[in-house]
Amino acid sequence: MENLICVTQWEKDTFLPNGRFEKAQSLVGPAVCVDPTSLNGGENWTDLLEKSNPEVIIAAWKTPTIPENYKEIAPRLKYVCYLPGSIRNLIPRAAIEQGLQVTSWSSSISRTISECALLMVLACMRRVRYWTEEMHFNRGWKPYEFDTLSLFERRVGVHGLGLISQGFVNLIKPFGNEVSAFSPSVPDSIFEDLGVKRSPSLESLFSDNDVIVELAALTPKTKGIVTEDLLRSMPKDAAFVNLGRGAVVDEDALAQVARERPDIQVALDVFSVEPLPLDSPFRGMKNVFLLPHLGGPTIDRRRDAADHGLENVRRFLAGEELVEPYNLNMYDRAT
Amino acid sequence: MENLICVTQWEKDTFLPNGRFEKAQSLVGPAVCVDPTSLNGGENWTDLLEKSNPEVIIAAWKTPTIPENYKEIAPRLKYVCYLPGSIRNLIPRAAIEQGLQVTSWSSSISRTISECALLMVLACMRRVRYWTEEMHFNRGWKPYEFDTLSLFERRVGVHGLGLISQGFVNLIKPFGNEVSAFSPSVPDSIFEDLGVKRSPSLESLFSDNDVIVELAALTPKTKGIVTEDLLRSMPKDAAFVNLGRGAVVDEDALAQVARERPDIQVALDVFSVEPLPLDSPFRGMKNVFLLPHLGGPTIDRRRDAADHGLENVRRFLAGEELVEPYNLNMYDRAT
Repeated sequence: MENLICVTQWEKDTFLPNGRFEKAQSLVGPAVCVDPTSLNGGENWTDLLEKSNPEVIIAAWKTPTIPENYKEIAPRLKYVCYLPGSIRNLIPRAAIEQGLQVTSWSSSISRTISECALLMVLACMRRVRYWTEEMHFNRGWKPYEFDTLSLFERRVGVHGLGLISQGFVNLIKPFGNEVSAFSPSVPDSIFEDLGVKRSPSLESLFSDNDVIVELAALTPKTKGIVTEDLLRSMPKDAAFVNLGRGAVVDEDALAQVARERPDIQVALDVFSVEPLPLDSPFRGMKNVFLLPHLGGPTIDRRRDAADHGLENVRRFLAGEELVEPYNLNMYDRAT
Repeated sequence: MENLICVTQWEKDTFLPNGRFEKAQSLVGPAVCVDPTSLNGGENWTDLLEKSNPEVIIAAWKTPTIPENYKEIAPRLKYVCYLPGSIRNLIPRAAIEQGLQVTSWSSSISRTISECALLMVLACMRRVRYWTEEMHFNRGWKPYEFDTLSLFERRVGVHGLGLISQGFVNLIKPFGNEVSAFSPSVPDSIFEDLGVKRSPSLESLFSDNDVIVELAALTPKTKGIVTEDLLRSMPKDAAFVNLGRGAVVDEDALAQVARERPDIQVALDVFSVEPLPLDSPFRGMKNVFLLPHLGGPTIDRRRDAADHGLENVRRFLAGEELVEPYNLNMYDRAT
């Protein structure tokens, strides 16, 4: 009976540097440390679970899926500390139903996504996508007449006022913008603390702001909620930045509107299909700034996720309450 | 005897929108408004100066040079309100020596350059240059192992603590970085007010910080002061961002160091030769982010420069002191 640490070398190096791996080992006691790439495509996973029968597993992207019947295979298993974010591939819903405790990086890394939102907004303002092509591939320089914008004096609208948006609002404080948000489930007190105005509707969020940051959670209700009409209603020179979930947006309409309106700047870190298809219309568009879903955490801040995870391991073993454990509702909202 | 407003249509549209042109007209009284592109390459300029004999000229990029013997041609001329920044092409040193008063946009637009510094720093952190090429031209996506950094927790060093740097320090306040600056001529009180540490030497600025922002003024003393040795001393994964003046840096050495050390990220908005030569080694480099000297002001904030200029016109006509007028010392430092 030994606990399990199942991470690749790169995951170990990036999540658990500077003594964190040793700390993890000493926390979970006698532990099997296994590189999941050695598990023969997951074939040996069930054997390993059965033999080690762990109470705690520290897991990452390459850890094979926990079987639905994990209670038969590893009856002592109570807690999976997943170092990254989205647990859907690792944990079947049935395991949560059976009481398996699971945590992920949750809010511990949200500040780096807020930072990426700021980058994407500023990149839209200066047409970074366009100038990168001009300077590097067209041997260009600015002509006498050109177009750049500043974030100063722009109206900023945020769709979804969760922790990432709240962090973003704090990062742009020195710019002194008027900020609105559409986020029906978030209470007035949070709006007031942040100095953010409540937008009466998604329609007004899009038509009355110069910069729109899309950070709504993906739910059956929000799927495709950013429609062609909303996108078309954006004012001249508006910027639309999505680093929430791609499927919240009608992406075909977004590509169409961006094509018809070169004044609009778009910045996307997330897509309904990832990796972004090779023939995506966004590829090559001069007013669409693209990143391959690297909003956060940045590699150097994965250690923050591990610190959060290891604190949860400590709490679990001390019989204390976990920080941000998954429940079924959260599981269903996760992507 | 009529004052002169000499701006192109685009300059009028961008500097003087929303009633500012009319305000300029009413301030300077009976005025000749002339588009300098109609002046036959400047040939008719002396005639125009002689005929209108203005006391005040409102000028911009395309206004022809004020003749050294302006006192013979237009003896009433006392004040040139130059809406943009660098007066060297418009005003000969001899005119300042003879007492011509001149103002430019000076500090009125520095906040947008600070904003560009923030953009360039964040772009280095996420390798925007690299990902833009991958996503748009190589139909790429992030591999399992990749590299991004966050500004959080990084040590930031600024070379030159003038108004643009001060604005930059304020914009990054929410990130909570430890910030140092090397700027011998700036008094301790400004460091203290900003919470910035004084770096003991340029050597320590480069070797002890993860992000170095180059904003030193170009003077005979600072020309080429950023040497190969300094650039080589930057720590692993450092970012070097220049939006001051290109000639402060040994650019050949910078290209060489960037080539040898792909961990280093470089972002450049300014160059010793502008427009950037077609065969510049920086073009095409995957760890060098390039902009064509568009740090500031952004086009939408040119109106701030005009507000500053028109306030100076008002002051001049009211016999009040000008805000930030040029003297010979400033003239010699300008580029």
